[in-house]
Amino acid sequence: MDLLSIKDPSFLKGLSQQQLQELSEDIRQFLIEKLSVTGGHIGPNLGVVELTIALHTCFTSPKDKILWDVGHQSYVHKILTGRASEFDTLRQYKGLCGFPKMIESEHDVWETGHSSTSLSAAMGMAIARDLKKEKSFVVPVIGDGALTGGMALEALNHIGHEKKNLIVVLNDNEMSIAPNVGALHSILGRLRTAGKYHWAKDELEYLLKKIPAVGGKLATTAERIKDSLKYLLVSGMFFEEMGFTYLGPVDGHNYDELFENLAYAKKTEGPVLLHVITKKGKGYHPAESDVVGTWHGTGPYKIETGAFPKPVETPPPAWSKLVSETVRRLAREDERIVAITPAMPVGSKLEGFASEFPDRMFDVGIAEQHAATVAAGLATQKMKPFLAIYSTFLQRAYDQVVHDICRQNLNVFIGIDRAGLVGADGETHQGVFDIAFMRHVPNMVLMMPKDENEGQHMVNTALKYDEGPIAMRFPRGNGVGVPLDKDLKTIPIGTWEVIKEGEDVAILTFGTTIPMALEAAKHLEQQGISVKVVNARFIKPLDRQMLSELFERKMPVLTIEEAVLQGGFGSSILEFAFENRYFDAVIDRMGIPDQFIEHGSVDELLKEIDLTVDSTIRKVIELTQVKGKKGSLL
Amino acid sequence: MDLLSIKDPSFLKGLSQQQLQELSEDIRQFLIEKLSVTGGHIGPNLGVVELTIALHTCFTSPKDKILWDVGHQSYVHKILTGRASEFDTLRQYKGLCGFPKMIESEHDVWETGHSSTSLSAAMGMAIARDLKKEKSFVVPVIGDGALTGGMALEALNHIGHEKKNLIVVLNDNEMSIAPNVGALHSILGRLRTAGKYHWAKDELEYLLKKIPAVGGKLATTAERIKDSLKYLLVSGMFFEEMGFTYLGPVDGHNYDELFENLAYAKKTEGPVLLHVITKKGKGYHPAESDVVGTWHGTGPYKIETGAFPKPVETPPPAWSKLVSETVRRLAREDERIVAITPAMPVGSKLEGFASEFPDRMFDVGIAEQHAATVAAGLATQKMKPFLAIYSTFLQRAYDQVVHDICRQNLNVFIGIDRAGLVGADGETHQGVFDIAFMRHVPNMVLMMPKDENEGQHMVNTALKYDEGPIAMRFPRGNGVGVPLDKDLKTIPIGTWEVIKEGEDVAILTFGTTIPMALEAAKHLEQQGISVKVVNARFIKPLDRQMLSELFERKMPVLTIEEAVLQGGFGSSILEFAFENRYFDAVIDRMGIPDQFIEHGSVDELLKEIDLTVDSTIRKVIELTQVKGKKGSLL
Repeated sequence: MDLLSIKDPSFLKGLSQQQLQELSEDIRQFLIEKLSVTGGHIGPNLGVVELTIALHTCFTSPKDKILWDVGHQSYVHKILTGRASEFDTLRQYKGLCGFPKMIESEHDVWETGHSSTSLSAAMGMAIARDLKKEKSFVVPVIGDGALTGGMALEALNHIGHEKKNLIVVLNDNEMSIAPNVGALHSILGRLRTAGKYHWAKDELEYLLKKIPAVGGKLATTAERIKDSLKYLLVSGMFFEEMGFTYLGPVDGHNYDELFENLAYAKKTEGPVLLHVITKKGKGYHPAESDVVGTWHGTGPYKIETGAFPKPVETPPPAWSKLVSETVRRLAREDERIVAITPAMPVGSKLEGFASEFPDRMFDVGIAEQHAATVAAGLATQKMKPFLAIYSTFLQRAYDQVVHDICRQNLNVFIGIDRAGLVGADGETHQGVFDIAFMRHVPNMVLMMPKDENEGQHMVNTALKYDEGPIAMRFPRGNGVGVPLDKDLKTIPIGTWEVIKEGEDVAILTFGTTIPMALEAAKHLEQQGISVKVVNARFIKPLDRQMLSELFERKMPVLTIEEAVLQGGFGSSILEFAFENRYFDAVIDRMGIPDQFIEHGSVDELLKEIDLTVDSTIRKVIELTQVKGKKGSLL
Repeated sequence: MDLLSIKDPSFLKGLSQQQLQELSEDIRQFLIEKLSVTGGHIGPNLGVVELTIALHTCFTSPKDKILWDVGHQSYVHKILTGRASEFDTLRQYKGLCGFPKMIESEHDVWETGHSSTSLSAAMGMAIARDLKKEKSFVVPVIGDGALTGGMALEALNHIGHEKKNLIVVLNDNEMSIAPNVGALHSILGRLRTAGKYHWAKDELEYLLKKIPAVGGKLATTAERIKDSLKYLLVSGMFFEEMGFTYLGPVDGHNYDELFENLAYAKKTEGPVLLHVITKKGKGYHPAESDVVGTWHGTGPYKIETGAFPKPVETPPPAWSKLVSETVRRLAREDERIVAITPAMPVGSKLEGFASEFPDRMFDVGIAEQHAATVAAGLATQKMKPFLAIYSTFLQRAYDQVVHDICRQNLNVFIGIDRAGLVGADGETHQGVFDIAFMRHVPNMVLMMPKDENEGQHMVNTALKYDEGPIAMRFPRGNGVGVPLDKDLKTIPIGTWEVIKEGEDVAILTFGTTIPMALEAAKHLEQQGISVKVVNARFIKPLDRQMLSELFERKMPVLTIEEAVLQGGFGSSILEFAFENRYFDAVIDRMGIPDQFIEHGSVDELLKEIDLTVDSTIRKVIELTQVKGKKGSLL
């Protein structure tokens, strides 16, 4: 059918199973074609075609609330709710968001990006529904990976206790982004292989009666036997113990099974967990046969072969790989080094480390809090933990960074990946808060390298440092292409580097914004303004000596950071100036304003927020004018 | 025995059971006497006397690592590790810490204060032990309440998967701080009442053989039956499913049972969960019969009666009560208002709200992340959630505040209790980071009232506000004693209030530090310096108009906050001045320096960090001198 003509999911209720099958096929083809051009989360979405159609057939959105945990699997939902025509703009600037977005559609009742939030949100919605005495279904759809997140487990515990009507759809594809880990994963594995039992209750009662009394002991254990029989009768004792009615496992690509079980779930009082087995990448061979997670989210690809376009020239190393491989290299000499990842072994490029040091690499699942405190526990025993974590997900472990790592001043090395703007993943994934939420924590050292060579030295610095926690933030994507020194050095903590000398204005910046500063400086030289560019590689502690010199010389200072301005690096320069009584300091700050930044290419986003060469030039010129004015007055 | 003579726990291994009983009695008497003077966590510690003695008898600390989750139940451990003589200084300035503290003793291998961290830390220690090929036991002791925290559940999932040797002692006293909630609590309840089964395995196999074949179906279910029998044989299927060997339930006041089960746990391969039932307050009648949590942590009391000294005069209302009761009052008119607490119904004084609106009050257990996102879910449905949470525990929900509440710009009212220094609970509980970690989050409104009358108007303001998230921080303890207006007002967002006019210097401050500023101003007037004191009640957004006027008039500004300086309120004033090109602004900031602040009375701590009337006077004088100097130059 013409997917572009779909306005809302109401048409589904009139379709025959044959038509639903055809629709599924059409949606798959649509996704495979569209995403081959734009890229996107192809695997997760191909896996939920039938499930999404079934949900929108059995429920009436938006009266019934369907919540997509993590949200990257909401493409089919977007097609069914009238957004097929926008897929050419998927994840592009001002285009269709790759995650649920309330402003796009009334059917997007909950926005996500980070995992494991849907059950808590659904609980809030169910409470609201019951207080308002409304009748509707609340249906969070959560993956088996997201279920291991602490807040999802907190929610299971609370939901099972409150007994509200809530239908949790567990979308079990046996892997989230990487293959899953954890005891829950094993539980699900046992449920999958156990299959479904359709024994009638009376058969079991017959069975029960046949069990002989053994010395009268059985009489005292009636309750226990009942529970035991329940275990025989019902799969999913784990979830039953948590207070849920467990249904499944259900083949998530079989409409009969889906409809039958969803109908049963709708009639069931109290919370239900419907265990649906899906196949990631279903219907597209290259994605379906993926076992490591390559097809979780991709760039463009060639449909026929599933091949990704080869880069024209060899790119500089990816930052994640540079960092992980340097840790690996150091781990050869220092057996105290242990790597920890919360479910991102592939994203953090830890495969090499894992294969060389399988005993020293721990994927703890989607569990950032636990990951951070495992690292802290290791550090108490004089190990050297490397916590590989994305900036945006480190937000989940803020309290663990404060309370467990920094307060105990433990030697944990946090590799903050995807720091700064991340582009297509958009506002839920921008790594722009880490400076503001890390800088004020006592004992923390926070740094960012200018290029991959400095990056490898910083990794070495971090793993040699033994005076407390140390973190290195680095951007998404590839390095800048500099040669790598053969021998690793350590960089003195709190020292900056002058990249370019200059007399009129000093730009203090670090990481990705250094090239922008240098380019602006080049233009400014042509206008007769001499700009000093400083690689302020230590965000905390600051290079107090260099700062004092700058302020003693009354040099105006411009700070640039690809991070939020409020409470950020630039603010720390203001703080320094005034704490040290440089009341005549002239300072301006560039960075991310006080708003959430949506998706788009990093360049588009930088332009939108005026973090460009042009605005750098403008700001520097303004600072020289202020200085001139002040100079004449002083 | 003379508890003061104890140097370390090694003496325990030579004691007879009779002697252990006597020791238990001595420790109980010691705690009851000492805490009647100092106050402290009496209930939790009386509950773990035998358990702590048993652990230190069966294990060899510090080679074996005993970790106290939350840590307020570590007093007996402190006595057994040579610190009895310091109990007169418990929780006092420079005195014995109320929580484990590495600098106090090598037996304190993990510091805590926040709950649910011990399993993750223990996992880190177990990994380290195995990598170093050492032999030792790692024994986290966690309460049934702390077990519902998401990170503890993340840890269970990971530990059960990794199969490391680890003995988790579940100290189940049926209530944590308040009576527990959640499905896990029900599971534990069933285990407690089920008692312990000692069936021999062969008896069960005999039973199995007697089960008749039913249409051959049983043949295909051998595995299922085995699991089912396991359920018959073994209690704690929940934990068994998570990959643990479950032992218990054990009477935590019975040495025979404790020794037998600890010995068995030590011999068991893989992770063990030892379920120990204890009685909070055991051995002291007033504490033992407590059902609401009064005796969890107390001030001084009269030993004979358990009575607390009556306050000499009627105190002003406690802040928690003022806030909760105002919410309650508003809830009578607005049925959209719902209250949520993560396990702090008593601390947050929500009893009144709960009794009047039982359907609109949700204690979600120790689950701050879930609590925040339940509030967000409620807000999507146009409800008015009030999230009552302590500042220090809000750290756990930072990502939920960013990603779920602020990013979606939802109308959640966060009541940030215990903001600022909290005193005796010390560095794990100081509420000093919230401004720095909330201020940079887009859409957030953050305020703090000067007194309880303004506080009630702010609560009203927050619950009437419908443009996004809004938070009000308020201190631990009681209000200042002002009369309460009968009618509630709303305060325009982002407006400050001039409390005292003045010409020479402006002090911008809010909340608890306002009286200090006013007193300093009084002294300064006598020295001929005219000080303006501003109640900067909105920390975000700032009162831009008033700030502009101050800076236009070139008035030097001193900011004072009982919160961290880095990235705090004072920094936002610096940011404002420079964003608005007041390059000649003269600003100084007072607040908490970049270090963790230990326990002591709030007054002692304020003095230590120089947040006093005297230093305010000093700073203001300095600012007038700078102005004079600048004035002569400008």
